[in-house]
Formats: sequence, C-alpha cells, structure tokens
Amino acid sequence: MLPLLTRIDHVGIACRDLRLAIDMYRETFGLGVVSLEENEEQGVREAMLAVEDATAGPGRPGYIQLLEPLGPDTPVGKFIARRGEGLHHVGYGVADIGQALASIGGTGIRLIDERPRHGSMGAAIAFLHPGDLGGVLTELVQAVVPT
Amino acid sequence: MLPLLTRIDHVGIACRDLRLAIDMYRETFGLGVVSLEENEEQGVREAMLAVEDATAGPGRPGYIQLLEPLGPDTPVGKFIARRGEGLHHVGYGVADIGQALASIGGTGIRLIDERPRHGSMGAAIAFLHPGDLGGVLTELVQAVVPT
Repeated sequence: MLPLLTRIDHVGIACRDLRLAIDMYRETFGLGVVSLEENEEQGVREAMLAVEDATAGPGRPGYIQLLEPLGPDTPVGKFIARRGEGLHHVGYGVADIGQALASIGGTGIRLIDERPRHGSMGAAIAFLHPGDLGGVLTELVQAVVPT
Repeated sequence: MLPLLTRIDHVGIACRDLRLAIDMYRETFGLGVVSLEENEEQGVREAMLAVEDATAGPGRPGYIQLLEPLGPDTPVGKFIARRGEGLHHVGYGVADIGQALASIGGTGIRLIDERPRHGSMGAAIAFLHPGDLGGVLTELVQAVVPT
C-alpha cells in the first residue's frame, strides 16, 4: 500500500498582523514569501514561506503558512480570540485527495470538508476534525505539482 | 548565504496517552513508530512517526512527534492542563545548531536553550521562546544525519 500522507506540507500559524509576522520570519530566519493570497471562503489573508529542504532535490518544499483573519467572526479570528496567536493546524501532502478523504472517512474520522476546496497556491485541500485527531486540526493538501 | 532552516523536521503534538495516540495515527493514516524514547530531562515519553516524502529521495523524512507528559508538573503536562491536547511545537532542521543559535540570538529572539541539548533520535536540539515568535514554540534540530 502506498503511504497515505506523502509529506509534511506546511504548518499553519495564526497571527494578528500578517505584515509583522512576515517581517519577523524574514528577520529571524531569513525566510521569504513565495505566495500571498486572500481566501474569502476561509476568511484569511495568508502568506506562504518556503523552508527549502537542502537534502531533498526538486520536490515541493515545506511551507510556513501565516494566516491573518479577515475579521473576528472568521475561524482564525475566533481561534486567536480564544487561544491567542500561534500554531493553528498542520497540513500533510497526499497524492489523491479524493482517495485520501474516502480512506480516512472510512475509519470514522469526521471530515470538515467532505469534498476538496481551494487552498493556497492552487492546491486542493480538505480539513479533518480536530476532535477526532487528538486536538490537532489536520489538513490534507494535494498540490498542483503532485506530492 | 545558506538558508538557516533547512526543512520542517517535525511537528510536536501533546497527548495524554501515547499508546492511544500511536494507535490513532496508525489506524487513520497508516503511520508507524520509528523511535520510542523517554526523555527525563524534558519530562516526556515520545514517539516519532515518519511521514516519508515520496518525492524527496534519501533525505531525512518529516516526523510527527507524539509527546506524553511524565507528570502534571512537566512542561507538556502543564500545556495539556492549560490548552488541552494538540499542536505543541514545530521543529526545523538546521545544519549547525551552534551557528543557528548565535544567529537567531543575535536578532534579539530569546533562547530557551542557550546551548543545544539532547533530543529525539540522538539529535542536538534547542528551543526558542514562543513569546518572541508569535506564540509558536519553535525548536531547532541538528539531526545525526546532517540535514
């Protein structure tokens, strides 16, 4: 059987001010923004910072995804109000998100997204319920370049 | 300049019961344990689960690090009492942890560990203060196999 999860795609980090967070990651770690998007459906402005794997060859890098809520009533806005800034979710690469959702849903894990939706950089994504996964909001990512 | 962070090494996840958490990741995602250790200094029992990167060749995979506290007065025990189970920290690979600590400390970020200490699978690790990093407890990892 092929592995269901192919890689750690990204860590999602909730921040109050995207510009300040981007500056902090640049000044501290020398990381730069490779994609900056607004996702109205998810209620966020987001920046993707690439953490290139020097050992890995030409594959997709891992990303830090910085998420600023578009308002207090968005999921990320509510997260920050309740828990403060910090780690919000983890995203794993999958080769076929439809197959992955069917497989995972079949184990009894609740799917927040029954069908894939639009994520960063054109990826197809879906979230799994943290209540069934030890408190971890977990995202599946089928990147445009297969992972 | 070489990149300071070479990869996303792992996500650290706090759990109440390591055995249950391991079972959950195996049953849901087919992931297996590659290392199981007790770290008295950090007050945890921990399991490393490899998320192999199918596109990456022979490099070190990304890991899910499951952390069960050895008692309520440990850092992870206090974390769970305050916030519940869930994402605890993120670890990034570095090529030279001494250089990385000097560079990052020089930017004004507080270092929890001024000097590297013993981490999972023989790695040298050090934590950076979440209060200076947008609420994210951040770990540097110099693996035994250079990353």
